[in-house]
Amino acid sequence: MAIVEINIIPLGTKTPSVSKYVGRALKALRQEKNIKYELTSMGTTLEGDLDELLRIVKKMHESTFGDDIKRVVTTVRIDDRRDQPSSTSSKTGSALRELGY
Amino acid sequence: MAIVEINIIPLGTKTPSVSKYVGRALKALRQEKNIKYELTSMGTTLEGDLDELLRIVKKMHESTFGDDIKRVVTTVRIDDRRDQPSSTSSKTGSALRELGY
Amino acid sequence: MAIVEINIIPLGTKTPSVSKYVGRALKALRQEKNIKYELTSMGTTLEGDLDELLRIVKKMHESTFGDDIKRVVTTVRIDDRRDQPSSTSSKTGSALRELGY
Amino acid sequence: MAIVEINIIPLGTKTPSVSKYVGRALKALRQEKNIKYELTSMGTTLEGDLDELLRIVKKMHESTFGDDIKRVVTTVRIDDRRDQPSSTSSKTGSALRELGY
Repeated sequence: MAIVEINIIPLGTKTPSVSKYVGRALKALRQEKNIKYELTSMGTTLEGDLDELLRIVKKMHESTFGDDIKRVVTTVRIDDRRDQPSSTSSKTGSALRELGY
Repeated sequence: MAIVEINIIPLGTKTPSVSKYVGRALKALRQEKNIKYELTSMGTTLEGDLDELLRIVKKMHESTFGDDIKRVVTTVRIDDRRDQPSSTSSKTGSALRELGY
Repeated sequence: MAIVEINIIPLGTKTPSVSKYVGRALKALRQEKNIKYELTSMGTTLEGDLDELLRIVKKMHESTFGDDIKRVVTTVRIDDRRDQPSSTSSKTGSALRELGY
Repeated sequence: MAIVEINIIPLGTKTPSVSKYVGRALKALRQEKNIKYELTSMGTTLEGDLDELLRIVKKMHESTFGDDIKRVVTTVRIDDRRDQPSSTSSKTGSALRELGY
């Protein structure tokens, strides 16, 4: 199980707002049945099998293109831990514990 | 008002777990009074004046060093929008609206 | 043709130096015949078909693991432009032209 | 001495090409006298004192804005090693040695 964070930036959007185009990627993500994800203000975090996650990353990236979008910059951070189970919730929990909560 | 995401990775930690060291950065962040932040599984997002945010980023980065940590890789993504007010909650809200919520 | 930048960080390495482990990923990359790549001080840039690049990214990430490395954080930036041919050299060239060279 | 990689993306540029706007940041960088930098196809790497580097990062980010650019996403990766001297050339050299050159 890996955790992946994906951030998608469409270029050449005429206006500074890009949520319309990023929405295409999120809709592609929502079609996936067996994947756990979280929206943050800076991207989306996904949790699951790494091959499966990379397939979804590719699909989200592709979905952002269209007649109006000819360039997309996608950043993916993979956090892959194999000594013990890891998850988005266990990672956030560890951070909170360090803060004394 | 800018949004900044910070991810801190201490190198040479002997074990794969790094939350103890990242906790130092979070404690430094918690001392800040006038800053809004959110923990995610992949980092921390901050919202505020850019100069102020960069000062805090530097402080969090520095706090991670110690006798046991001699190398730190910190990644910072700045999303700075000046045509209209922007915030972590307005960005996540836009994403949710694109998904039809 | 897309351009991909990959940065690999092995966690839990006992010492701050990680080049030995990152070397495993570079050796995996070097086995690839039909791919153009460049080493920078912060990672490796690759140029080619996106599916092919993602396959190589996965292989480089996997190669970093071993008995001594149980956690790897890999960051991948994909710059994918479809309105005209793009390459690592054309991008650096554009930057140099902006600087007046 | 730290190494910093900076990648600047202006949003809302009408066309997929962004080199004109990124050129503003590079011109701001070129005014700096005591800084060593390298252009790569994915950004710029800088080497120097961390406070100085963060000042330059801020200046490059600011320089990208204009009447035509109201949103800029800037990503900064800081690699800060304090057990021994580090530089862009020593890091690339280590990578090459791992490859047997």
